[in-house]
Amino acid sequence: MSTLFILDIIGTFVFAVSGVAAAVERKFDLFGTIILAFVTAVGGGTLRDVLLGAKPVSWMNSDLHILVILCAIPVAFFFSKMLRKLRKTFLLFDTIGIGLFTILGIEKALSMGMSPIVSIMMGVVSAVFGGIIRDVLSNEVPFIFRKEIYAFACVSGAIIYLTLLQFNMAVDIAMIISVVVVIAIRLLAMRYAWSIPFVPYANRKK
Amino acid sequence: MSTLFILDIIGTFVFAVSGVAAAVERKFDLFGTIILAFVTAVGGGTLRDVLLGAKPVSWMNSDLHILVILCAIPVAFFFSKMLRKLRKTFLLFDTIGIGLFTILGIEKALSMGMSPIVSIMMGVVSAVFGGIIRDVLSNEVPFIFRKEIYAFACVSGAIIYLTLLQFNMAVDIAMIISVVVVIAIRLLAMRYAWSIPFVPYANRKK
Amino acid sequence: MSTLFILDIIGTFVFAVSGVAAAVERKFDLFGTIILAFVTAVGGGTLRDVLLGAKPVSWMNSDLHILVILCAIPVAFFFSKMLRKLRKTFLLFDTIGIGLFTILGIEKALSMGMSPIVSIMMGVVSAVFGGIIRDVLSNEVPFIFRKEIYAFACVSGAIIYLTLLQFNMAVDIAMIISVVVVIAIRLLAMRYAWSIPFVPYANRKK
Repeated sequence: MSTLFILDIIGTFVFAVSGVAAAVERKFDLFGTIILAFVTAVGGGTLRDVLLGAKPVSWMNSDLHILVILCAIPVAFFFSKMLRKLRKTFLLFDTIGIGLFTILGIEKALSMGMSPIVSIMMGVVSAVFGGIIRDVLSNEVPFIFRKEIYAFACVSGAIIYLTLLQFNMAVDIAMIISVVVVIAIRLLAMRYAWSIPFVPYANRKK
Repeated sequence: MSTLFILDIIGTFVFAVSGVAAAVERKFDLFGTIILAFVTAVGGGTLRDVLLGAKPVSWMNSDLHILVILCAIPVAFFFSKMLRKLRKTFLLFDTIGIGLFTILGIEKALSMGMSPIVSIMMGVVSAVFGGIIRDVLSNEVPFIFRKEIYAFACVSGAIIYLTLLQFNMAVDIAMIISVVVVIAIRLLAMRYAWSIPFVPYANRKK
Repeated sequence: MSTLFILDIIGTFVFAVSGVAAAVERKFDLFGTIILAFVTAVGGGTLRDVLLGAKPVSWMNSDLHILVILCAIPVAFFFSKMLRKLRKTFLLFDTIGIGLFTILGIEKALSMGMSPIVSIMMGVVSAVFGGIIRDVLSNEVPFIFRKEIYAFACVSGAIIYLTLLQFNMAVDIAMIISVVVVIAIRLLAMRYAWSIPFVPYANRKK
């Protein structure tokens, strides 16, 4: 429980930082920036909770997530120059957040009696829909639909996590292993420019 | 009940196929394609369930819908060439899905104690919001807002369905009649290029 | 209660008018116009209710809101020419709606046991997300993210409202004062072209 809680706070913080960076890039004003920070940080978990019927959505049960996000905004600015130059570091944070949220989403869905397949979906939804909603609100095609393979990283981590639990591994250790796998796949994918294109029509034309 | 169930599965399948086609057209990668297949297939019903407060949303109660959608993806590719050439056949499938989902949405809303007007709205939401969310995620103005009259087909089918029930017609027969009406209106509309433009300002300018 | 109810109906009406105006500007057909009227009028409150877990969302408990919105559509057309020329009057209606919905959202969240911070957020969500969803469905960057300070007006009104309640002011009077504050800030902002830009990166570049 305690591990889940800490992961949740860290994931929320790094996603909020990522939302601020996106808002600045798109020249949003202060309000737009706050909204984008919130949507990126809690959008995936909110969609998961709404689909599961959790009432109210989890981050509204206390003020903690709100305060974490509000703190992330000035931090994002303080480190803005650094974030800009260190794009890879920024993507690392983003990747950690994705790994954490995948596991959190699975745990929540399992605890609400969902099947393993639905739980994997809820893990992926938690991890990627914050970014998807961020992109939709910014009037862009979600980045993840075109160039990213981190969804593949998410799904792999989710399946590994459920498999480890099946073999009675301790939850905390299974979590750490799965998050590390998600991060490793994503970083390797970025390093070697992996991608999973989907061009069967083009192929058939030849 | 059994009829409703079969309609639901067929509708889910044809909507997923329609989502795959849209994703391919937009050059999404595998993950984007899967998301678009899901969103198109279950987006309308999900929004309906979220608005009604069904917990969790209906397709998450079993793995069946997920499996139907995952099966629709390779099928959509297998028939991709055909789908491309037979655009009308494809629109026929889409239209069948719309008719089915309208009736399903009304039934669900009525069963949860909603008024006839709210139930008609929920029928239309079930039928059209999968496509609206698909278009929003693809960064496009929803097709249905500009050139389509299938919303009119939906609403007509919904009203006919409720009227037939009022006259104590058997649910199964009322359903079949209503779905056929929806399909007929849509096909006639496509054949004769019906549309309901809305240009009162332009008219007044003259 | 009665005051809240009347505010709700007025707010719904003016937001629906604003949705019709947006739809006409974007050349949507009749169905697109109806959807945009609904989304603008009840979108913010719907998101608030979904996040809070209200079941079903409040406007679906009766046909009243639906009828108000359906009435607003012809009215919006009847006054369309006037609305176009009197852009400021139109913005005034919009501002009234925003003030009303902010207070309604806070009240709903407080009544469901949310913290003051969460309640302020729910007030702002009620007030601004109708317009945000309207813009997203129209494939535009939400207006409020770039050029508007009415979010600031909302937040100010929300904080004043909660402060007045803290000092045991009667709910009705606190409401009226807060709504007037929201309207005053927005109108002053428009008059003097206030804005809260957010360009720290640009500043640092110098």
